[in-house]
Amino acid sequence: MTPKDNIRFGVIGAGRIGKLHAQNLTTRISGVEVATIADVDLKAAQTLAENLHVPLAVEDYHTILLDPGIDAVAICSSTDTHAKIICEAAQARKHIFCEKPIALDLGHIDSALQAVQNAGVKLQIGFNRRFDPNFRKVHSLVEEGKIGTPHILRITSRDPAPPPISYIKVSGGMFLDMTIHDFDMARYLIGSEVEEVCTAAGVMVDPAIGEAYDVDTAVITLRFTNGAIGTIDNSRKAVYGYDQRIEVFGSNGMIQANNNTPDQDIYFNAEGVHSAKPLYFFLERYLEAYIAEMAEFVQSIHEDTDPPVIGLDGRMAVVIGMAAKKSYLEHRPIRLSEITTPIFQPESYTE
Amino acid sequence: MTPKDNIRFGVIGAGRIGKLHAQNLTTRISGVEVATIADVDLKAAQTLAENLHVPLAVEDYHTILLDPGIDAVAICSSTDTHAKIICEAAQARKHIFCEKPIALDLGHIDSALQAVQNAGVKLQIGFNRRFDPNFRKVHSLVEEGKIGTPHILRITSRDPAPPPISYIKVSGGMFLDMTIHDFDMARYLIGSEVEEVCTAAGVMVDPAIGEAYDVDTAVITLRFTNGAIGTIDNSRKAVYGYDQRIEVFGSNGMIQANNNTPDQDIYFNAEGVHSAKPLYFFLERYLEAYIAEMAEFVQSIHEDTDPPVIGLDGRMAVVIGMAAKKSYLEHRPIRLSEITTPIFQPESYTE
Amino acid sequence: MTPKDNIRFGVIGAGRIGKLHAQNLTTRISGVEVATIADVDLKAAQTLAENLHVPLAVEDYHTILLDPGIDAVAICSSTDTHAKIICEAAQARKHIFCEKPIALDLGHIDSALQAVQNAGVKLQIGFNRRFDPNFRKVHSLVEEGKIGTPHILRITSRDPAPPPISYIKVSGGMFLDMTIHDFDMARYLIGSEVEEVCTAAGVMVDPAIGEAYDVDTAVITLRFTNGAIGTIDNSRKAVYGYDQRIEVFGSNGMIQANNNTPDQDIYFNAEGVHSAKPLYFFLERYLEAYIAEMAEFVQSIHEDTDPPVIGLDGRMAVVIGMAAKKSYLEHRPIRLSEITTPIFQPESYTE
Amino acid sequence: MTPKDNIRFGVIGAGRIGKLHAQNLTTRISGVEVATIADVDLKAAQTLAENLHVPLAVEDYHTILLDPGIDAVAICSSTDTHAKIICEAAQARKHIFCEKPIALDLGHIDSALQAVQNAGVKLQIGFNRRFDPNFRKVHSLVEEGKIGTPHILRITSRDPAPPPISYIKVSGGMFLDMTIHDFDMARYLIGSEVEEVCTAAGVMVDPAIGEAYDVDTAVITLRFTNGAIGTIDNSRKAVYGYDQRIEVFGSNGMIQANNNTPDQDIYFNAEGVHSAKPLYFFLERYLEAYIAEMAEFVQSIHEDTDPPVIGLDGRMAVVIGMAAKKSYLEHRPIRLSEITTPIFQPESYTE
Repeated sequence: MTPKDNIRFGVIGAGRIGKLHAQNLTTRISGVEVATIADVDLKAAQTLAENLHVPLAVEDYHTILLDPGIDAVAICSSTDTHAKIICEAAQARKHIFCEKPIALDLGHIDSALQAVQNAGVKLQIGFNRRFDPNFRKVHSLVEEGKIGTPHILRITSRDPAPPPISYIKVSGGMFLDMTIHDFDMARYLIGSEVEEVCTAAGVMVDPAIGEAYDVDTAVITLRFTNGAIGTIDNSRKAVYGYDQRIEVFGSNGMIQANNNTPDQDIYFNAEGVHSAKPLYFFLERYLEAYIAEMAEFVQSIHEDTDPPVIGLDGRMAVVIGMAAKKSYLEHRPIRLSEITTPIFQPESYTE
Repeated sequence: MTPKDNIRFGVIGAGRIGKLHAQNLTTRISGVEVATIADVDLKAAQTLAENLHVPLAVEDYHTILLDPGIDAVAICSSTDTHAKIICEAAQARKHIFCEKPIALDLGHIDSALQAVQNAGVKLQIGFNRRFDPNFRKVHSLVEEGKIGTPHILRITSRDPAPPPISYIKVSGGMFLDMTIHDFDMARYLIGSEVEEVCTAAGVMVDPAIGEAYDVDTAVITLRFTNGAIGTIDNSRKAVYGYDQRIEVFGSNGMIQANNNTPDQDIYFNAEGVHSAKPLYFFLERYLEAYIAEMAEFVQSIHEDTDPPVIGLDGRMAVVIGMAAKKSYLEHRPIRLSEITTPIFQPESYTE
Repeated sequence: MTPKDNIRFGVIGAGRIGKLHAQNLTTRISGVEVATIADVDLKAAQTLAENLHVPLAVEDYHTILLDPGIDAVAICSSTDTHAKIICEAAQARKHIFCEKPIALDLGHIDSALQAVQNAGVKLQIGFNRRFDPNFRKVHSLVEEGKIGTPHILRITSRDPAPPPISYIKVSGGMFLDMTIHDFDMARYLIGSEVEEVCTAAGVMVDPAIGEAYDVDTAVITLRFTNGAIGTIDNSRKAVYGYDQRIEVFGSNGMIQANNNTPDQDIYFNAEGVHSAKPLYFFLERYLEAYIAEMAEFVQSIHEDTDPPVIGLDGRMAVVIGMAAKKSYLEHRPIRLSEITTPIFQPESYTE
Repeated sequence: MTPKDNIRFGVIGAGRIGKLHAQNLTTRISGVEVATIADVDLKAAQTLAENLHVPLAVEDYHTILLDPGIDAVAICSSTDTHAKIICEAAQARKHIFCEKPIALDLGHIDSALQAVQNAGVKLQIGFNRRFDPNFRKVHSLVEEGKIGTPHILRITSRDPAPPPISYIKVSGGMFLDMTIHDFDMARYLIGSEVEEVCTAAGVMVDPAIGEAYDVDTAVITLRFTNGAIGTIDNSRKAVYGYDQRIEVFGSNGMIQANNNTPDQDIYFNAEGVHSAKPLYFFLERYLEAYIAEMAEFVQSIHEDTDPPVIGLDGRMAVVIGMAAKKSYLEHRPIRLSEITTPIFQPESYTE
């Protein structure tokens, strides 16, 4: 592949997030084309392919892996298939963009990361929030030292409505399907690893969530290796919409990221002063971030550089999620070192 | 053409705004395709066509008008060609989207509007700001009576930097190339016609603008038929970026539209509290508005309804601009009725 | 009087504004004491004196003027008595703080200013808004050149509710009882004289105001000697409270002063995001400003310096108000030089 | 004492906070007078008395307690004297306003509360922040059910600069001299008792603070009896000023209290958009709150009602502070029941 050539993608999974990535790849990102869309529901793959003028739709994603003309895959299938497809795609020498989480257990994660390392392909995990303009600017200012040494991190992350109970039963629970994004954000912003986690959580939104052995409201305290302290607060249900705010406080200042709203209007009447709620949910709020993450993945292939979010990032967020869950169950602070020793030894660690 | 068929467009002009519309039509709007791009600079047309997978690029826009497979044109050529191309496109039974202004004199405008009326085709003028989410919501709240009867309108409209002097010499001057948008916005929001205009203006930004017989700073007061009073303030140069704010005050409340910013971050340090400047200029600020205006034009063709901004809107904004200029020159309030009687008598007026 | 001595005040008028100044003088300002309160309603004077531990209450303010132990007077009586009391107080060698306006005609104003000049006493006019922290900071930034050369001034000044019709009949009308503050603010902020005024106004709030030959809604455009253009918008009735905002735009930036609110809370619910209305009216909004203006008057006596708002300021605001009214009546821009030539020639002008 | 009589106060302590209360009592609160000021530094008492026209200044506060004409005392002396003076004042049948904390150990606190109960006098503890307009409105909205059931409480409480090390050595440390206010605020806003505390803290601002066996940065998680979860973050040093924000999130909404600023101005230039930092520290931020707390104490005496902040409130905040410290030292969640059983059994508990 010469730098001027388009990178040819196969998209695996034509559900909500697969549609989103396929659409972005075909209409919003240059230097790339989508060659094939695969879905176990062939009809879904065909409809999407037709709408986006993608030449081929298939039921079995192995067609994509076997196609020598395809350079990269976007894995947008169900979570339980991620690790397996990563392994297979790596063996087929495809670069890989995979939605989070890689898997819900470390064994599968580590196998996948090992396969990627062995094959020497690129792997980017779909932590889209890192590409949000608000949070990216927070990251830049922290990195440039504009707030001095970070002391306190506050993440507010609340969904507008809980997912179906059926989803909660297979997702790994709130810490692994929802807070996982906040754990990644915490590492990204502070630039240091989490050492210890302490969770206070409960069922306040819907008792059915408790019956599914999950929680719906939590405050999680993080201790970082560099001494900083973080706190994340989560709720499955904010009636005013998707609440995604962050604040990093340091020795020389503070930087806050606030919510995006659909408009900048303010209405004054005899009752008060009124403005718009935050954008409803992640598809609205992270519209730009989804485009930017894929564009940077494509760029990392074109320029043969490391992708901006790597496999270890995907692994660390799961480890922190496991620690948060354990802290909740055992009602005490949990050090990350208490989570089972990794099977996987990345090269950069063993050298 | 059946409702399910794509509408086929010819784009005339491959400059900055032509590129924008061609890109939106090919990637952001459904139910439409671009068949041909024309530009007097054939190379520009070819490059754009290639990038957007448009099958044909031509030098002479008459190729588009003669193509029976083309349903609509987007006129993005230089201002002095607008009226002529509208006439020809109307005779060729194409629906027409035309950038503002239609022309700088009423004779040409009225000929164009007459041709459109005779042909029974649709004509939409590119007053993109009406489609901005902030201003659209202001319009809705006013229309719904949420502020009661409108009493005072305030429009702040300031550019980040003046255009080249060469542009100012052919644009008709600030009132016709810049304030024209604000005049349209005033009519749109108040829902009543402007009756009288009074201008205070001067050259404060750059003496070269004055040497080109134009002004660069103005405050224009509008009297509406329904009694409301409006005020527009303009500057060719706001060092902090594109300042586009509006406020409508009425008997039961007020609605304000504020600027959009690239992020929602706030940075606190020992010096103060800092946030982002407004988005730099119209391409950034009105990104969504450009898509929405074209999508609604396409929809009006599909559904055979009136376009949201019609030819008379384009005419009225020019008339107000002429009155504003006359008020500046004669240093007195000018009634719109003092501007030369229209040649064109639209059907809805003569019946 | 030695610098360490308290300045002894007589307060003339025990109505709303007299009470306010008497209270500030007795409890909020150091280096001063109130010796006597006078009011034509003796009972009102007595009640106020008792509440504030002021030793003497009288019906006739001449008692104050005749008391050699009194250094200064605060004139808070009805407008029609201001000029006369200023003359008498000046002749009695008292320093004078007088509420605005000095008078409604230039003859009386000029007699009063002449008397003050002849006596060499200090005269401060009660343009309290200059002492508001928001506006004062705007003034400082403009003066320091932080916005470069001022180009456009915007003043929004709307009352929460119209005064009684009986008041409107004697107040001189909206331009002289309400906009007068904005005219003074315009001069204060731009640091240049107003040269020309153009008014658009109407009766939109209450027809009874029109029957009293006044208007209740106005947009007034100001041309300054230094080339800047200003616009003031007024309404007698903003249902959301006292709206007092200012914005100065210049070659290097803009400074805005926004409203004060009783709290900084934001309430989010399923309907939207809600915050507090502006403070209700001038007593709430300008609480601090009333204290600061009197404290500075006291300081100017202690330190024998010019008061921060002088008699000519009081005169100029009336002249601009007269021009605004004339512009409304004659429907054309009015130059200030069209208002009758002043009788009064202040020393600083004649030298 | 008849309702119409002034309540006569003795102020004990003429330091910074004593001055503040004495000044508020003499100039800002009606129905009250200050009869005597006591301070171990007689000169300080005399100077303050003279400035405020208070008739008597003494060295020994017992003079106040022995004066039958004095109804109430304001205890503003050093912390180690609070409990003793409360006991003596109660025995002397004086109503008591006492600065926080009552004492640093529960034995002394409980003795003091017992003495107050035995004497039947009123005791109000100086948790001034409850009277801040921002926080008071948060409390009202929560109480009225406007946010539904409270789920998550977030308190940000950061000082602009650390106190002297000498103060830290006697203050009981950050949790008892600074966070104590936040603990009280947490109980006040949630309307439920704290059950468990978990602290993450460190020395990030100044190593000298660590050498004094204290911390300067902390995140404290609170579990409430009603299930709500709270988090407090503290820093001894925010370079941008006093950061006092609160947010309560519930099943039907959220209410936020933001910082107060000295002005409402916004400055736009080529570098960005700039506004004022929060008010510098507690004297500026809680100016109104200090007046309101004392006014309500006075009112509770006049009307013979319970004061708005009672002795048990003072006790609970200390107990939570002790638990926070223990959690920090033992690195685990601490239930409040682990803190030594109270000696004091208030009547309302034993019935």
